Amino acid sequence: MIRIGIVGGTGYTGVELLRLLARHPQAEVRAITSRKDAGTRVAQMFPSLRGSVDLAFVEPAQADLRSCDVVFFATPHGVAMGQARELVAAGVRIVDLAADFRLADAAEFERWYKMPHACPELLAEAVYGIPEMNREAIRNARIVGNPGCYPTAAQLGFLPLVEAGLVDTTRLIADCKSGVSGAGRKAELNLSFSEASDNFAAYGIAGHRHHPEIVQGLGRRSKTPVKVVFTPHLVPMIRGILATLYAPLLDRDADLQALFEARYAGEPFIDVMPKGSLPDTRSVRASNVLRIAVHRPPDSDLALVVAVEDNLVKGAAGQAIQNMNLMFGLPETTGLEAIPVLP
Amino acid sequence: MIRIGIVGGTGYTGVELLRLLARHPQAEVRAITSRKDAGTRVAQMFPSLRGSVDLAFVEPAQADLRSCDVVFFATPHGVAMGQARELVAAGVRIVDLAADFRLADAAEFERWYKMPHACPELLAEAVYGIPEMNREAIRNARIVGNPGCYPTAAQLGFLPLVEAGLVDTTRLIADCKSGVSGAGRKAELNLSFSEASDNFAAYGIAGHRHHPEIVQGLGRRSKTPVKVVFTPHLVPMIRGILATLYAPLLDRDADLQALFEARYAGEPFIDVMPKGSLPDTRSVRASNVLRIAVHRPPDSDLALVVAVEDNLVKGAAGQAIQNMNLMFGLPETTGLEAIPVLP
Amino acid sequence: MIRIGIVGGTGYTGVELLRLLARHPQAEVRAITSRKDAGTRVAQMFPSLRGSVDLAFVEPAQADLRSCDVVFFATPHGVAMGQARELVAAGVRIVDLAADFRLADAAEFERWYKMPHACPELLAEAVYGIPEMNREAIRNARIVGNPGCYPTAAQLGFLPLVEAGLVDTTRLIADCKSGVSGAGRKAELNLSFSEASDNFAAYGIAGHRHHPEIVQGLGRRSKTPVKVVFTPHLVPMIRGILATLYAPLLDRDADLQALFEARYAGEPFIDVMPKGSLPDTRSVRASNVLRIAVHRPPDSDLALVVAVEDNLVKGAAGQAIQNMNLMFGLPETTGLEAIPVLP
Amino acid sequence: MIRIGIVGGTGYTGVELLRLLARHPQAEVRAITSRKDAGTRVAQMFPSLRGSVDLAFVEPAQADLRSCDVVFFATPHGVAMGQARELVAAGVRIVDLAADFRLADAAEFERWYKMPHACPELLAEAVYGIPEMNREAIRNARIVGNPGCYPTAAQLGFLPLVEAGLVDTTRLIADCKSGVSGAGRKAELNLSFSEASDNFAAYGIAGHRHHPEIVQGLGRRSKTPVKVVFTPHLVPMIRGILATLYAPLLDRDADLQALFEARYAGEPFIDVMPKGSLPDTRSVRASNVLRIAVHRPPDSDLALVVAVEDNLVKGAAGQAIQNMNLMFGLPETTGLEAIPVLP
Repeated sequence: MIRIGIVGGTGYTGVELLRLLARHPQAEVRAITSRKDAGTRVAQMFPSLRGSVDLAFVEPAQADLRSCDVVFFATPHGVAMGQARELVAAGVRIVDLAADFRLADAAEFERWYKMPHACPELLAEAVYGIPEMNREAIRNARIVGNPGCYPTAAQLGFLPLVEAGLVDTTRLIADCKSGVSGAGRKAELNLSFSEASDNFAAYGIAGHRHHPEIVQGLGRRSKTPVKVVFTPHLVPMIRGILATLYAPLLDRDADLQALFEARYAGEPFIDVMPKGSLPDTRSVRASNVLRIAVHRPPDSDLALVVAVEDNLVKGAAGQAIQNMNLMFGLPETTGLEAIPVLP
Repeated sequence: MIRIGIVGGTGYTGVELLRLLARHPQAEVRAITSRKDAGTRVAQMFPSLRGSVDLAFVEPAQADLRSCDVVFFATPHGVAMGQARELVAAGVRIVDLAADFRLADAAEFERWYKMPHACPELLAEAVYGIPEMNREAIRNARIVGNPGCYPTAAQLGFLPLVEAGLVDTTRLIADCKSGVSGAGRKAELNLSFSEASDNFAAYGIAGHRHHPEIVQGLGRRSKTPVKVVFTPHLVPMIRGILATLYAPLLDRDADLQALFEARYAGEPFIDVMPKGSLPDTRSVRASNVLRIAVHRPPDSDLALVVAVEDNLVKGAAGQAIQNMNLMFGLPETTGLEAIPVLP
Repeated sequence: MIRIGIVGGTGYTGVELLRLLARHPQAEVRAITSRKDAGTRVAQMFPSLRGSVDLAFVEPAQADLRSCDVVFFATPHGVAMGQARELVAAGVRIVDLAADFRLADAAEFERWYKMPHACPELLAEAVYGIPEMNREAIRNARIVGNPGCYPTAAQLGFLPLVEAGLVDTTRLIADCKSGVSGAGRKAELNLSFSEASDNFAAYGIAGHRHHPEIVQGLGRRSKTPVKVVFTPHLVPMIRGILATLYAPLLDRDADLQALFEARYAGEPFIDVMPKGSLPDTRSVRASNVLRIAVHRPPDSDLALVVAVEDNLVKGAAGQAIQNMNLMFGLPETTGLEAIPVLP
Repeated sequence: MIRIGIVGGTGYTGVELLRLLARHPQAEVRAITSRKDAGTRVAQMFPSLRGSVDLAFVEPAQADLRSCDVVFFATPHGVAMGQARELVAAGVRIVDLAADFRLADAAEFERWYKMPHACPELLAEAVYGIPEMNREAIRNARIVGNPGCYPTAAQLGFLPLVEAGLVDTTRLIADCKSGVSGAGRKAELNLSFSEASDNFAAYGIAGHRHHPEIVQGLGRRSKTPVKVVFTPHLVPMIRGILATLYAPLLDRDADLQALFEARYAGEPFIDVMPKGSLPDTRSVRASNVLRIAVHRPPDSDLALVVAVEDNLVKGAAGQAIQNMNLMFGLPETTGLEAIPVLP
């Protein structure tokens, strides 16, 4: 059994980790911490876990994280990097669901997250946690920076085109739409039901923290410079991200369907849809699957890719467990076989 | 033109007052106050009012409320009673959309709202603002306590039965369902989209502040003591209240349809639905109409009444304006003729 | 492995059976029939099953149902009773998710479903499939009538009070609210998003087919005659039923919390909530759990019970599998351990 | 008073016409037709109109449309062109809310709508009904082709850029999102609440009928050829369209904010938002306003425009009445002053 610690378990990624790990045959959650709610039973805060999770939140100080095999950070940005040195020194491996270890360049991190990086030397060895891009490196990683929800969909959607050098990588557009849970478990007026339901809006056009992450990831696989226009939108639904991706084709004759099917052949969690079809977000609800369709819009020289994922699973907790499975030599799908909930 | 002041205009009842008054031919909103947002343009906070409302929020101190004909309090409980004496002394009439002037018994107010009443002598003269129950008294009132959203639907639904002495008033049940806007414009976790949507729950069973208001209102029209079991529920919709009301019949042969049609004949905002039909909340969305249907469930001795209203209009701002129209001798429907928005 | 046939798999109960059975360690779905969609791949109609279900719908005639151990009918009313004799004669056991085997009285069935019963002699032996009420009988049943969604919540909510003789069984009120999926996978105007969302309504007050089912089930456990007023409502959510149940108490001093905890002690799928708490539908979303809370409303002699379930799981497909587990001597929770999806 | 006939009033554009016209001071709806529902009271089908609309649907044959001043066609495509000759000959003016008179090229119409055009000679004189583009022509039009919902938002969003020759008109992208009511009042499975809510998807990528309409409209105002990639998406909300528009800039130094403010100065229904802000669909709910924001995404040479409208008002019935006001010399805003309903 893998001994697991969770730091900051009161958000949606935390409860999703608990939901998935409680049914993971090799996982044993030893401790879950929360400054604010120490002492509270987990199942009292999340009645959906009654009968399945018999833990209480503990003070970070009282959690013996160093005796864990792996620690998940489901915290705000800046927490993981503060504890990473001590844990790594103790032989504990880390999966950070926040942004501390996503951007390889400390200056870039500082620019977007407005705080100095606490352990640049660990940042240098941290592995970016998209298995479909970094599988081998993740196996041996001591620290995995688990990707953002938008970047997972956007990168995996553009990836085959960029790797194949088929598109003008300086004119990419990612028009992305996310359910409200992507904003986290927060008491914010603009996220309240009366404000967010029966409504649709764009936001973050002037600059979103997931932007540099997308550019970095695609840049590593591209022979040419990568520029992306990234436009996030808020959808009145709980879970789900849909990314509508536009890329100018350099070769109009390429067989895009074959390209995508070849690139993702054998990937357990990537489903390339049949030619001509389109995925909807509910088709992956509560599962770790990402479904992709690639199209050629009429009267254009563009490739149009539509990718959907559950922002809390493949976009967060599920991918974190997929990474853990790799890090500990387990079959990659262990504990992640749940079928999407439809309707 | 009626010179109007609005105290505390940043909530949903405040913006709804502005939406309705901006198209009221006899209304002139002179000032709208907000401690927190003084200086902010109203249309900046509420883009829906761009081009229609050219006011900024002002400090309560700077608002010359005493030069108004009427002041609406769209504030938390406790504010109106603190300013009532001064305003009334200045000849300003008051419509309080909060609870300060709803409960005639100061002790009862104190018990439910956990604060002493600041002006019991004015409480004694305040009129409870349901025109269909108190029309004449409202015309001459200096202070109107505008009812709660649930009490409006529950009282108007039970009223014909209670007035006619047809039911056992000690065994009334009001199973009520409200849209989320009824909780106000608040940053609260339990009201967030991710918590409240695709979900349904009861709340406040142990005691809700609208309970004594319902009992008081019906008690005044009943020859027998009134007891009500009141169960509020939260519905994943923005606007609307539906009250499902159960009353044990003393006379099984009464013509309930005729009773309701007679009681509400000529009422401009009460629509008694045809026999056998049922109203839905969207049929009154954004309007001041309350629709009622009365039924006899099979194999029972109960009267079953279903009443729907828009909690922000007939349940709050619309009824407040209906009261204002009465207080200033205007046709009762002035500025309230809007047709429900469907779909 | 249990060899399973599913008749009529294109509705929501059908796809839910497939979702659950695909991960059931002892289940092997041999055939799934559909007249209309014979030949279509299941995963083409339900992309959520891509990669998990590798079956195509077949003509009922071509499905070798007699070689199955059990056949689930996820069909409209009237289909199961037409095939029951032949299947039972062949030694196949039946779980009917429709109403053919719910009402023990053929005349009552005929009255509510407007068709003669095709096999009254089998109706006589059929077992009503609520394990918490009929566990032993279900183990040996050849035919199980799987309950309706409303009746499951209403009966299990009232049951402890009725069995204990604590309430006036002639004055029960079940004010029930259901998500839209309860109406099935249908192209009906009143179920369309533009009609049903941001809206709330009651329906079926004049008589609902689940009414006699509730009365029958409670009547069997009651020493006194049972009368129930049943008021269904449609909630703008996909899954979930919440039943608000009112029962006049004969004994005001009874410890209701202790009564419910004792009655359901050891039940794997019934969760009696802690005193003073209330369940919401999302706390059981996509799981087979039914959560119950019992309260005493202030200033009343009523017991108030709130019960929640997922109408497609404990209210349909999940309970059907729970029954199958009992019928084949498997642990009752096999394949039903999934944790509710929240948010 | 303008004597009005409505052909096909049982859809959402029909009921929206009735809602708006019932409060239009110069409008008198003389007749509303429906083959299917002739004889039914309008208010019986749409309870929201109880007390406001006292008409019944009549057989098209029995409606004396020739005595009307104007006839609105709120019908499926193909109906208006069948009656246009007779009505125009009788001096009746026509506003078609369907597509019969939108595309100037009969061949193009035939290609997209799969039917020959019944009156090409009238098509030649028909005016495309976006007042902000064709105001003068509309005043004198005998036939107005009222635009589609998507094309209204897409054209008005791109228009200032295209007219000014500031963008590469061959590489325009319109990523559009619509509420479900845009699909009409239909009993279709994919529009049902259980299918469409808590979900998001793209559709019609291979070719949507609104595509040629957008290209035609912008082409008329462009000195260069126009190519648009148009990607519609379905949003789980009732009303509202949001268009996210991307246009490659030819001149990076242009003051886009000033351009848009100048282009739409004095337009009563176009609201250019302050620099840096973004509109949401609810800010125009149930009103005829279209709000636009123009941005320059970081690290790109694109203009990004976000436009929102209510698809049933500015996208359909409201714009039709705006056209009628122009055609009959009324102030353009008559009957369209309603303030958006928020929340």
